[in-house]
Amino acid sequence: MSRLDVFIARMVSQRACLNFAAEATASIAGPVFELGLGNGRTYHHLREIIARRDIYVFERAVASHPDSTPPDDRLILGDVHETLPAALARFGPAASLIHADLGGHNLDKNDAFARAISPLVEPLLASGGMMVASDRMYFEGLKEVSLPADAVSGRCFIYQAG
Amino acid sequence: MSRLDVFIARMVSQRACLNFAAEATASIAGPVFELGLGNGRTYHHLREIIARRDIYVFERAVASHPDSTPPDDRLILGDVHETLPAALARFGPAASLIHADLGGHNLDKNDAFARAISPLVEPLLASGGMMVASDRMYFEGLKEVSLPADAVSGRCFIYQAG
Repeated sequence: MSRLDVFIARMVSQRACLNFAAEATASIAGPVFELGLGNGRTYHHLREIIARRDIYVFERAVASHPDSTPPDDRLILGDVHETLPAALARFGPAASLIHADLGGHNLDKNDAFARAISPLVEPLLASGGMMVASDRMYFEGLKEVSLPADAVSGRCFIYQAG
Repeated sequence: MSRLDVFIARMVSQRACLNFAAEATASIAGPVFELGLGNGRTYHHLREIIARRDIYVFERAVASHPDSTPPDDRLILGDVHETLPAALARFGPAASLIHADLGGHNLDKNDAFARAISPLVEPLLASGGMMVASDRMYFEGLKEVSLPADAVSGRCFIYQAG
């Protein structure tokens, strides 16, 4: 399997999981959180598939495509180790959907980051809310959800709050 | 259609076209040319699907993933406006497969680049050799080939020398 194959599997899985989770959480009014903007392709996709929910983007520094840059009042700038706890104080346990593509080349670094942010992400979810992640997360109380048909096992993970 | 959808369609089409063209040109002994290395995902893929042919990469400056960096003697460094004519002098009309992902955000720039390099690419191909490109090219004597089933029209182009 080439790096191109792996990359395509990851992108296709990400889209399938986001489409599935957006629909599965559509009845929850709380906001959607995108952790990391990158060049904004996934945020652009979220804007297409999310109706009637605010989408907030957590990012250290914006470097996205002009088409895919959130408005200032939907942008939460800073280090997620600080902005996620601040979001809990601001929004409470209300998020309907949280997405994170940790996706660096270094798998050990991704895993350490997943361990660090899991306890900061978990309390943000509303009951029934879902987290879609590119890497395995370390939650105490969320249950892992079966992937939709188009997603490739191990390329994407979905968790749900009880 | 989101930017994520467009991007996935482009990557899936690129892979389908490369797999098709690699097989269709397998009986031609001449080298394979990859124009632009980027992070090396496509080069990594070419190495998997190309047997018994040398793969040369044309690049201005190497910034690829360590897994996907060509050996020095398969790297042709410099501006393609100079290195493509030099390759004609070195190899003659011998290439079995040429791939170029022009893929910038700016469609006008991509098109201008396609127009500029088309006459430099065309004479490099062996009889029966193929060019796979992310953008429409401007060849005088090559014929456009129908895309394989998995490719999306307009996201990839295949040309063949008579």
